[in-house]
Amino acid sequence: MAVGLVAPDALLPVSGVRVGVAKAHIKKPDRRDLVVFEFVAGSVCAATFTTNAFCAAPVIVAKEHLAKDAPRYLLINTGNANAGTGARGIGDARKCCDAVAAKAECVPSQVLPFSTGVIGEFLPVDRIVAGLDAAFANLTVDGWVDAAHGIMTTDTLPKGVSRRFEIDGNLVTITGISKGSGMIAPNMATMLGFIATDAKIENTLLQTLLRDAVSNSFNRIVVDGDMSTNDACVLAATGASGVDINRTYEAAYSTFAQALNEVCLILAQAIVRDGEGVTKFVTLDISGAATLEECELVARAIGTSPLVKTALFASDPNWGRILAAIGRAGLSNLNVDGVMVFLDDVCIVRDGMRAQEYIESAGQTVMNQPEITVGVKLGRGPATAKFWTCDFSYDYVKINAEYRT
Amino acid sequence: MAVGLVAPDALLPVSGVRVGVAKAHIKKPDRRDLVVFEFVAGSVCAATFTTNAFCAAPVIVAKEHLAKDAPRYLLINTGNANAGTGARGIGDARKCCDAVAAKAECVPSQVLPFSTGVIGEFLPVDRIVAGLDAAFANLTVDGWVDAAHGIMTTDTLPKGVSRRFEIDGNLVTITGISKGSGMIAPNMATMLGFIATDAKIENTLLQTLLRDAVSNSFNRIVVDGDMSTNDACVLAATGASGVDINRTYEAAYSTFAQALNEVCLILAQAIVRDGEGVTKFVTLDISGAATLEECELVARAIGTSPLVKTALFASDPNWGRILAAIGRAGLSNLNVDGVMVFLDDVCIVRDGMRAQEYIESAGQTVMNQPEITVGVKLGRGPATAKFWTCDFSYDYVKINAEYRT
Repeated sequence: MAVGLVAPDALLPVSGVRVGVAKAHIKKPDRRDLVVFEFVAGSVCAATFTTNAFCAAPVIVAKEHLAKDAPRYLLINTGNANAGTGARGIGDARKCCDAVAAKAECVPSQVLPFSTGVIGEFLPVDRIVAGLDAAFANLTVDGWVDAAHGIMTTDTLPKGVSRRFEIDGNLVTITGISKGSGMIAPNMATMLGFIATDAKIENTLLQTLLRDAVSNSFNRIVVDGDMSTNDACVLAATGASGVDINRTYEAAYSTFAQALNEVCLILAQAIVRDGEGVTKFVTLDISGAATLEECELVARAIGTSPLVKTALFASDPNWGRILAAIGRAGLSNLNVDGVMVFLDDVCIVRDGMRAQEYIESAGQTVMNQPEITVGVKLGRGPATAKFWTCDFSYDYVKINAEYRT
Repeated sequence: MAVGLVAPDALLPVSGVRVGVAKAHIKKPDRRDLVVFEFVAGSVCAATFTTNAFCAAPVIVAKEHLAKDAPRYLLINTGNANAGTGARGIGDARKCCDAVAAKAECVPSQVLPFSTGVIGEFLPVDRIVAGLDAAFANLTVDGWVDAAHGIMTTDTLPKGVSRRFEIDGNLVTITGISKGSGMIAPNMATMLGFIATDAKIENTLLQTLLRDAVSNSFNRIVVDGDMSTNDACVLAATGASGVDINRTYEAAYSTFAQALNEVCLILAQAIVRDGEGVTKFVTLDISGAATLEECELVARAIGTSPLVKTALFASDPNWGRILAAIGRAGLSNLNVDGVMVFLDDVCIVRDGMRAQEYIESAGQTVMNQPEITVGVKLGRGPATAKFWTCDFSYDYVKINAEYRT
């Protein structure tokens, strides 16, 4: 059961973007599992990818194509990650791009491939190619919600969000979808996210905008500490709105950047809210760190601690496990007596021990909620950052013990 | 259910060491939870401790006492970790040492305190002090098995091992006990281990012997990736056998070191075999690394991966998850095509993908066993090392979600 997450009824179309979805029978017979994005000629694309050394074949091919050409098409399949498939996997990803290019009358390097699903099985290229007709036949500006369904794996709900805002009287739209609920760890380039806008933005700036937004959203979530082989996040700008975003007009730039950050944050949080087996959505609010890196070390230690996560599952205000995680986070010369820990507004730890005024029932009341903020004040400096994580339940084990069967 | 582990029927006494056990009603009413070790005057002690910044009060006091005096007594309680208890916790640990010193007519700094159990509750000093009479009353050279029971927390079985060997016709004995099954991560100073020998060894050399043995045993295990606040391992040498171990007589030294390494390895593996919720005992055999540190990075990534561990629980030869873990281990410029992965003797990965000759049934046969070796050949250099870990089951979640109730 996802926490505080509802499926989007509708997502705003982005002028210059059409989306087509098909059933290609990749893993399961009767589900939407193939998605095609089409960007109008002249669109610009930025992307970030997993930093896992075992990155999947489509990641390798997508990076290569992105370096060569401006993408016109994205081809996304679920049910098979095309990872750990060696040279044949790379060839398979190319074949799929070739087939899209042939249908669309573009060059293959204008197609970026993305795959998600089981690792280590060869891609059913024939079934994917056979599905392209249907996907192309239903290309529509209104295809975003169907696409959000079409990229799901163990997700229980589709994830998408739109923002529409004015810049000097002109409407600009950003719409994005994401997928992912396991193999999610921070400090990387994320799961799958596809975002488009009709603003006009040149390539380098678009990459900067995406990188900044991802670093504050997708790179700040952790479900289980495992980093995926297939993570990718794409931001396309079609320019169809006629609104130009650049550094010389700072007000428009910051309006756009803020909206993009919001979209990325909502999509990233949606992944945690739908984390495998999740029962709690937890914000880690780390402050008083010497550096941003210290915030990340502490958040990662807490967010990946099986003991903290099982305590969260049990609604147990077990501050000792939180302290133990902070203690092993790797901060040099940490003075434990300067650390304070909060559950929402309730101070549970001060001076390296249970806060004098803390009563367990107050912590219990907070822990019983489905959404909790764990605040950590380190007392070492000015850096502050938020991260998002979830608990660790029987169902996480069940989902991942039974995934391949 | 522990994997391949049986409770020791008997452990060999170590001349110069007496052990007493009592029921002090620390957490549960009717269990042995208080242990006293007594070392004959002239004994030498070495110890290693957790590197967690939030180390417990007894760790702080034990280090302080160890720096000052040669220990004559160890006082160990289970049921309460005396961690996250601030200045009062340190005072409580001192009070317990004072009480032992008063009974034994030694100075308090000749007593080392150790605690394990729930974090964040104050130590019931009165009950511990009241239990000392009974513990002292049954001090005996044959108390090791009772002590192995008396230090357990979530352990399902007591853990202990003895080795007796000859050096120039003289018998030397090493006996040790350990506890721990959760909050176990490598690269630290470990859970609780108490080892004694009747060899005569000077202090610096004893510390070197212990450090080397621990680095190849207790520091190479991982149950859940969480590092304890209370870890400690003690090695006492009473000298009562009259056998002198030193660097000038290399043959005796190496015989002793080998026996000590065996004792530490068996005790460390016993902790993994009895890991919380364990159903698989897994050896990670990492080779072809450029450095020992690379071996550790890879072993830690695999051994702490929730996805690998849930696959192990499911007896699923999911080599993709193993590859994904290796890929995020942090090795610079890892050439994935040079990596090979084995389940026992079955090669499952070569050239960055499923090995050509691999058939799933062969992998399945290996995975169905309770004890498995995952071999990783990195193809980067000469370094090789073994580590030990276990799977991640429903029962791990259950044990840790219900621990405080």
